[in-house]
Amino acid sequence: MRIDILTIFPGMFAPLTESIMKRATEAGHVQIVVTDLRDFALNKHRSVDDYPYGGGPGMIMQAEPFFLAVEYLQKQTASAGKVLLMSPLGERFSQQKAAMLAKEQHLILLCGHYEGIDERVRALVDEEISIGDFILTGGEIPAMVVADAVVRLLPGVLPQEAVADESFVHGLLEYPQYTRPAEFRGMKVPEVLLSGDHEKIREWRRKQSLLLTLTHRPDLLQQANLSDSERQLLLDEAAKRKIELLL
Amino acid sequence: MRIDILTIFPGMFAPLTESIMKRATEAGHVQIVVTDLRDFALNKHRSVDDYPYGGGPGMIMQAEPFFLAVEYLQKQTASAGKVLLMSPLGERFSQQKAAMLAKEQHLILLCGHYEGIDERVRALVDEEISIGDFILTGGEIPAMVVADAVVRLLPGVLPQEAVADESFVHGLLEYPQYTRPAEFRGMKVPEVLLSGDHEKIREWRRKQSLLLTLTHRPDLLQQANLSDSERQLLLDEAAKRKIELLL
Repeated sequence: MRIDILTIFPGMFAPLTESIMKRATEAGHVQIVVTDLRDFALNKHRSVDDYPYGGGPGMIMQAEPFFLAVEYLQKQTASAGKVLLMSPLGERFSQQKAAMLAKEQHLILLCGHYEGIDERVRALVDEEISIGDFILTGGEIPAMVVADAVVRLLPGVLPQEAVADESFVHGLLEYPQYTRPAEFRGMKVPEVLLSGDHEKIREWRRKQSLLLTLTHRPDLLQQANLSDSERQLLLDEAAKRKIELLL
Repeated sequence: MRIDILTIFPGMFAPLTESIMKRATEAGHVQIVVTDLRDFALNKHRSVDDYPYGGGPGMIMQAEPFFLAVEYLQKQTASAGKVLLMSPLGERFSQQKAAMLAKEQHLILLCGHYEGIDERVRALVDEEISIGDFILTGGEIPAMVVADAVVRLLPGVLPQEAVADESFVHGLLEYPQYTRPAEFRGMKVPEVLLSGDHEKIREWRRKQSLLLTLTHRPDLLQQANLSDSERQLLLDEAAKRKIELLL
């Protein structure tokens, strides 16, 4: 996969050059190319923003540098790519969305900044993506969220077992994890985990996942794949806690 | 405000040293200190992870380095701080949450990595925060999301007008923005924005905000502060589009 990122702050993308992202790049699973939008500025000052029509605070990023940059990248890669704009109007990003994007060959991520971008940039865009109901200083950090979530799902980047068990994959939060020491400041690792009884450990973890999800994210349970006895366990527990739960 | 970030990848935090974050730091509105958790490792290899009790893929971050590091920072700053863990179990991050955290004097953000962290780290934590239903390679990018969203709300960081009008603040998405040129590849700026009639521009923008929110995020409208005529406009438009809307 190739991921192009268009930004006026190319220096920000350190998170995509360390750890798992670094290994994924070195192993050839992904090529992440960060392009400075200012290289496509229309003036010698390399400015890519201007005052908003109709007045108001702040500066608006111009449409043309985005068009020129995307067209340049599309020509260079001989690929239209999937052009994504980080935007609060977008579809909410999710693990399902990450899995869908991981099937693409080429993503082009556009990062807005300042007060906003010229509306006409939207003509370039295949999809808008929002990472949540909060405002950031630009689209750079959201672009890193998307790139990180997508790349770790590419075949070969992580061991299959590592991505099979984690939160949201089965509609459940992950069970609690413990490592050494067995006792730390009076806090002990649950005995079952020291038992060596793999079936018991599996059962304990599954139950913890169910209960954690009930406590923190009962909304997820409706999409979870539950056995009859698991459903009953959750309904009993919900009744005990006086939580309304429809399963 | 002081923001401490505890991580095994201190080199990732470039996004907090550019643009608005850089200016906020230079102006003294915030001090962002990134601490390498490996400085608190218990062994000369500086490793802070170990195998999970009970088996399973991947490595788990140990509890003790987190405890030692947080205690060191608390002593050094003579402040308990508010200790936040980036975690899928956490409360969903939102603009409202960012505004609440912006009132704190000292935040300590803990970044997990690998397969997870030892459950006992939770004993250190005041609040867990999730930025959404997706999995990333670590808590570093989520910590940047939180720091960025919070710092831009600190008094003096951005002009008041800039933060008053934006998406989510009034329960509405922001209106479309345009900058020069007035016509680009056949796409024209709406005439009202060139009219110089400020009252008409204000009305047009408000209406666009309402319609954009209806299109993309009708769920937000229930919390929006709407006049009777605005409510009627939305109900009429929803009826026309055959959308069910309760206001």
